[in-house]
Amino acid sequence: MGLHIVRYEKENEAQWGVLSGEEVIPLTNTSRTLDAFLEEGPDEAKSLLASEGNESFPVGDLKLLSPVTKPARIVCQGANYSSHREESGLEAARPPFNMIFGKADSSLCGAYEDVIRPDGVKLLDYEIELGLVLGAEVTEHSDINEDNLHEYVAGLVITNDISARDIQLPQGQWLKGKSYRTFCPTGPYLYLLDEDEMPLIHDLELDLWVNDDLRQSANTDQLLFKPAETLVELADIMDLSRGDLVMTGTTGGVAMNLTPELLGKVTSLAVPGQDKIDMMVEDQEGNGRYLKDGDVIRCAIRSADGKIDLGEQQNRVVSQSIASSTARSNGLNAAK
Amino acid sequence: MGLHIVRYEKENEAQWGVLSGEEVIPLTNTSRTLDAFLEEGPDEAKSLLASEGNESFPVGDLKLLSPVTKPARIVCQGANYSSHREESGLEAARPPFNMIFGKADSSLCGAYEDVIRPDGVKLLDYEIELGLVLGAEVTEHSDINEDNLHEYVAGLVITNDISARDIQLPQGQWLKGKSYRTFCPTGPYLYLLDEDEMPLIHDLELDLWVNDDLRQSANTDQLLFKPAETLVELADIMDLSRGDLVMTGTTGGVAMNLTPELLGKVTSLAVPGQDKIDMMVEDQEGNGRYLKDGDVIRCAIRSADGKIDLGEQQNRVVSQSIASSTARSNGLNAAK
Repeated sequence: MGLHIVRYEKENEAQWGVLSGEEVIPLTNTSRTLDAFLEEGPDEAKSLLASEGNESFPVGDLKLLSPVTKPARIVCQGANYSSHREESGLEAARPPFNMIFGKADSSLCGAYEDVIRPDGVKLLDYEIELGLVLGAEVTEHSDINEDNLHEYVAGLVITNDISARDIQLPQGQWLKGKSYRTFCPTGPYLYLLDEDEMPLIHDLELDLWVNDDLRQSANTDQLLFKPAETLVELADIMDLSRGDLVMTGTTGGVAMNLTPELLGKVTSLAVPGQDKIDMMVEDQEGNGRYLKDGDVIRCAIRSADGKIDLGEQQNRVVSQSIASSTARSNGLNAAK
Repeated sequence: MGLHIVRYEKENEAQWGVLSGEEVIPLTNTSRTLDAFLEEGPDEAKSLLASEGNESFPVGDLKLLSPVTKPARIVCQGANYSSHREESGLEAARPPFNMIFGKADSSLCGAYEDVIRPDGVKLLDYEIELGLVLGAEVTEHSDINEDNLHEYVAGLVITNDISARDIQLPQGQWLKGKSYRTFCPTGPYLYLLDEDEMPLIHDLELDLWVNDDLRQSANTDQLLFKPAETLVELADIMDLSRGDLVMTGTTGGVAMNLTPELLGKVTSLAVPGQDKIDMMVEDQEGNGRYLKDGDVIRCAIRSADGKIDLGEQQNRVVSQSIASSTARSNGLNAAK
């Protein structure tokens, strides 16, 4: 069985720990980045779990942080499940290319933090995704396959690729609409896989609820571009570092639901910008599934056999103005 | 007058220096990142320039590296000059939004390094752009304006946003087609501006030649979204660090030349992927302006009054297969 690593706040510092049942055992490791942590942290976590009499704290008492640290590259696959392709107005079949985009690393937040809806954003959407945490530096063409995947993927995290659809689609490039601060709840755990568990990466169940209404439910066996082939492609393009995050795309059930006709109009670079924004909001605003202030999103990922359990996220949606005033009264920076 | 900072290779290590006429004076500063260098490096450079009897080397004898170091966020503005909007098939006027996308930091390369055309890429294009190097960390809403811009922009670099058009446009998201290794020649100098020179940022002349044929020529007064307003917008979305790079978009004269009709087809998410790739290549391959193996690209940026001169880049285009075999015979990694 692998390790459930947590990163949490203790006296305004980030602290690493390892989960044992419902308790977290603190590590002495003080690495500031996940990259550095992956050097010696896992060995310490293993030896703590094997020993007795360790200090520990109930996980529910801790303020969990994203186990993926900044700076990190966040590389995302778009439209990588047929069910999500179809609801977005795309051809359902696997396309001839793997759609790749980026997300700012300041979008990372903890598994129980508030998701802040920016002022003016009307079409706020959710996207549960399996996140792969890189376990090795990649700087050139690499033959990555099912047999050596464990050398490149250190572990798995639940991620939620929060998206402002009224910015993302009409503006053409997705970086902005997917990068606002708190748009990437990550965790609660970084699950470091044992080598023999790696095949289970293809049989993980993803579920997302909004206010206890099950909205997304899928299995990673439906991924159109699989982790190994995606990493091979990325290695041929760009460098990645240990601790970077690859998000594998979301499945059907998001709030957005577009006809191919509307998708064609709102994404065409030949249609003037303001027209696209207006069309998108007018068509979608009434569908009732977009996130509203106060909504609670829950995400869970686990294997059907129970061997791998990435835990559960729970994030409340708050408006930017409320988040700012709360932060002011606490003397904190809302964006932190 | 500001400082011309260079970063160059010396005994397989990166070394910082400052330009004095045609000579480079080495600094003792050993910072591994531009962020760290900006802490104390500029003061050392100034005091070296003010003293006499320093060791120095002809700049032409040095192998220059990108002064922007990894890891760095590279945030790019798209379609930010009317002349480039028009040739791309877009409405020429300033649109209602600032188009923002990212480029992988492993695309950074030196001002005289070879640009490697990946196998299979048929439509390789150039894009001269003014690059802004951040001088401060930005983590929340920030009131950035002409009066305090010097606090946020430490300096300027020439950048060339090399683009594989047959990947970039048909695949919809631009990250991949703009991120291949060597797709971002940067330098030769990082020009650290004096505060009183900051207004000249709006009056810089950009020129790009392919084999001595002048292809792009413009002035930064034509930028549709100006640096200060762009940084204000970015600050409201994402965190940026000192040493990060913002590329301000390219002007007319690139190889790509699309009618609005073709642009509409090859960028619509509602048109099947392979059709778009075929249409794009068929329409564009014959235009004769795309980069061919052996072509030499030159880029220069300077103010008309000569006060600011960012130097000149010169990059040769080589095919991936030739670059790999040369690297093998040198015992080097081509992607380095």
